[in-house]
Amino acid sequence: MGTATYTSVEKEFLEYYKQIESYGEAIKLMAWDLRTKAPKKGVQRRSETLSFLSQKVHELKTSDQMKSYIDQLKNSSDPVIKRSVELVEKEYNQSRKIPVEEYKEFVELTSQAESVWTEAREKSDFEMFRPYLEKIVAFNIKFAEYWGYKENRYDALLDNYEPGVTVKTLDQVFPKLRDDLGILIEKVNTSTDKPNTDAILTHFPKEKQEAFALKVLEKMGYDFKAGRLDETVHPFAININHDDVRVTTRYDENDFRMAVFGTVHEGGHALYEQGLNKDLYDTPVCDAVSMGIHESQSLFWENFVGRNETFWDQYYELFLDYAPESFKDIPKHEFYRAINEVKPTFIRIEADEMTYPLHIMIRYELEKGLINEEIEVKDLPQLWNDKMEEYLGIRPEKDADGVLQDVHWSDGSFGYFPSYALGYMYGAQLKTALNQSIDIDEAIRNDDLSPVKHWLNQNIHQKGSMKEPLDLLKEVTGEGLNPDHLIQYLTDKYGQIYNW
Amino acid sequence: MGTATYTSVEKEFLEYYKQIESYGEAIKLMAWDLRTKAPKKGVQRRSETLSFLSQKVHELKTSDQMKSYIDQLKNSSDPVIKRSVELVEKEYNQSRKIPVEEYKEFVELTSQAESVWTEAREKSDFEMFRPYLEKIVAFNIKFAEYWGYKENRYDALLDNYEPGVTVKTLDQVFPKLRDDLGILIEKVNTSTDKPNTDAILTHFPKEKQEAFALKVLEKMGYDFKAGRLDETVHPFAININHDDVRVTTRYDENDFRMAVFGTVHEGGHALYEQGLNKDLYDTPVCDAVSMGIHESQSLFWENFVGRNETFWDQYYELFLDYAPESFKDIPKHEFYRAINEVKPTFIRIEADEMTYPLHIMIRYELEKGLINEEIEVKDLPQLWNDKMEEYLGIRPEKDADGVLQDVHWSDGSFGYFPSYALGYMYGAQLKTALNQSIDIDEAIRNDDLSPVKHWLNQNIHQKGSMKEPLDLLKEVTGEGLNPDHLIQYLTDKYGQIYNW
Repeated sequence: MGTATYTSVEKEFLEYYKQIESYGEAIKLMAWDLRTKAPKKGVQRRSETLSFLSQKVHELKTSDQMKSYIDQLKNSSDPVIKRSVELVEKEYNQSRKIPVEEYKEFVELTSQAESVWTEAREKSDFEMFRPYLEKIVAFNIKFAEYWGYKENRYDALLDNYEPGVTVKTLDQVFPKLRDDLGILIEKVNTSTDKPNTDAILTHFPKEKQEAFALKVLEKMGYDFKAGRLDETVHPFAININHDDVRVTTRYDENDFRMAVFGTVHEGGHALYEQGLNKDLYDTPVCDAVSMGIHESQSLFWENFVGRNETFWDQYYELFLDYAPESFKDIPKHEFYRAINEVKPTFIRIEADEMTYPLHIMIRYELEKGLINEEIEVKDLPQLWNDKMEEYLGIRPEKDADGVLQDVHWSDGSFGYFPSYALGYMYGAQLKTALNQSIDIDEAIRNDDLSPVKHWLNQNIHQKGSMKEPLDLLKEVTGEGLNPDHLIQYLTDKYGQIYNW
Repeated sequence: MGTATYTSVEKEFLEYYKQIESYGEAIKLMAWDLRTKAPKKGVQRRSETLSFLSQKVHELKTSDQMKSYIDQLKNSSDPVIKRSVELVEKEYNQSRKIPVEEYKEFVELTSQAESVWTEAREKSDFEMFRPYLEKIVAFNIKFAEYWGYKENRYDALLDNYEPGVTVKTLDQVFPKLRDDLGILIEKVNTSTDKPNTDAILTHFPKEKQEAFALKVLEKMGYDFKAGRLDETVHPFAININHDDVRVTTRYDENDFRMAVFGTVHEGGHALYEQGLNKDLYDTPVCDAVSMGIHESQSLFWENFVGRNETFWDQYYELFLDYAPESFKDIPKHEFYRAINEVKPTFIRIEADEMTYPLHIMIRYELEKGLINEEIEVKDLPQLWNDKMEEYLGIRPEKDADGVLQDVHWSDGSFGYFPSYALGYMYGAQLKTALNQSIDIDEAIRNDDLSPVKHWLNQNIHQKGSMKEPLDLLKEVTGEGLNPDHLIQYLTDKYGQIYNW
């Protein structure tokens, strides 16, 4: 994969592409800064700079020069170049198919919509947001038509986040997943031996949480010479450049789980970015396969490592060095049960492992209905609440806790939510595959997680985006999308926690 | 000054110029991040991005489009546009006069030279750095010839940092300043009642220093909604954009003066940037007049406010809330004397107020000699040490403490050092002028520094770079460069501290 074997046009193409990466670094640093450090008054000018630089990237991605590279290198004999061209061509086509004026209107609409949504959520006033959402849905329908699809209009949108995954794929797995989760949740609800979280929800100073979170990142093998941990309101991981992959977290002094499991989650994303192949740096394939595969990495670490009983058997002593005195009175197993409490919530981002996929399915069904014009925006609040009641057994009393809770629609993103549930299933499948050569629990007991990280590096991270998600999954696990691994994991784990 | 009155070409020109400011924001955020937060491994790619973005700025500044705006708007009837065009034309000419290939060579040379210098300083090995410095001097001589000058070749370099100031200007004031400082230093040296710094050089936790530094910035009127304070190795202030002006400082737990006076100094720079006229934002005149005028602001706050006895009379109680217990035993006046100790040092950046200008004069005389080919690079160490002995009465034992101490030459900057001493004289002149309407001591005693800040806002900051430094000085103080104000200030202050 060294540049030595590239032709001169290939080298030129990579040099050209590197400009996009350079602008990307500036944009990502600005975004990180806005979400962690930037003073308020500078935000307005910063937004203008961000939009200026994004425009430059757009120009490079959709230029005649780019088209010329695509035409010249489509049949390159080098696999990296060939795949790179496929990736940039897809973006080129997606962008060029939308008339410039329409795209501008859409960008303006979404930038207004986000602040309207913020206010609407605060006031729990769906009607305020409705006209914007109606326009956003209409734009997404138009875009889907421009981009094209084979079977279902929603496929055109899904493809932006999870290439190769279609409505057909999802409709094959989601109903089974929903039914199986329904059975498990019923067992949880009727359990007579539920965990108690009272003892763990005690005041836990932020600095102590941070110190422990840093310890855990270190155990995971996160490279602090190529990253750092900062505080934010909405946690994220970001690759400012490939050797500068930062993690952020949020502290709730009355519930340490937010920061600790949030850090492990974002740390999982960061390990993916830090694990990309150095030989691919600055090429279009030096990127995650998809949102879903990215999420498989974060959920892998958060759930299969961080919420694993062996993890707490091994590290509870360490944890007690940071935790308030009162934790010393909590038996290790009770602590483990408490951090894994299953409890339906209105808010997706506060959901436990078991109910989380149901939140996603609700959004998926509504999005699919909207894009296929089978349901109308005006009916969303009612539909949302009905589905919450049906799937989770709870009904939001206000739209702020229901249809208005997520930012995604206001910024124009349709087709993104399914990746969260896909990542979860991918993750469980990867866990099964990894367990064939590596015993996660043993690695934890050895206080050496490097075999786990190494396996993920070799099987996922190093490959960049050379393959599409379902192809990669097949290559690594030997099978296609299969929800059984997730169900099996949840059945085993929660049967023990809830003693059913 | 509103855009309402601009012609369409003027508006186009300002839009064009705004792109430079947008790139500038990205570049400055990256620089701030590199010096405060960035993980090590990401630095190499970051440097490439910085060089890419700087190239974009260079292209915009030297384009045919820029030339066309200059030609069209040279005689604009709007004073802001007219001055803006003068400023961009100067840069355009400076850049265009240097052949592209030569400039590239120079950039490569200096980027190598800086790391060679770092190593040479560590090893105190001037010979290692000598060949690079010789080439850098040769380039500066060539550039000065390309740019042109009336009387002295060094004027061409000075003009980049302090427009309108020439060797003639400096040679009129520096000898007198040197002689007067010599007399004062002699009085200090022979004083029988010197301050004692032992008691203040005690362990002072970083967090406490930071908390007090933040308090002082607040007293100065620094706007935290448009800025923030961070830690760094070499302190600086930076306007990431005009509403995001950040300050950095360095903590020495055994000498709190570094952080406290360093913060006040950088805070003075920041107040300048925060005080620029909003109507001028994103125009070429929304900038400091010169390096020297910038330095006049930082030194004003550091010395005339922060090292002022009234300041400590007023705020010593507050300081004691943060300082270690042992400070309670130090009488206020002894504390004040200790923070103003005069003591010749080898290292410029550790110098006190009185000896500081002598460090600058040594560099000025050597630079002038090199650029006029009156002295040779190989003789620098000897010449440096001789001058140190002559002016400061101390002789460095190694070049790391002498000729190798400053980074400036390695990055190619010649003509910059005089601005430090000019800023000091400007500052003292401004203090005299300000004192005619505002009593600094009274403002401090009222715990309200806003009249001081307001005066500087009105007389300096709000004017942007509409004028050249000596013209602005004349406008505000009624006279040209005059070292007497500085000498008078030092005489009064140190006569009292040293009881002569």
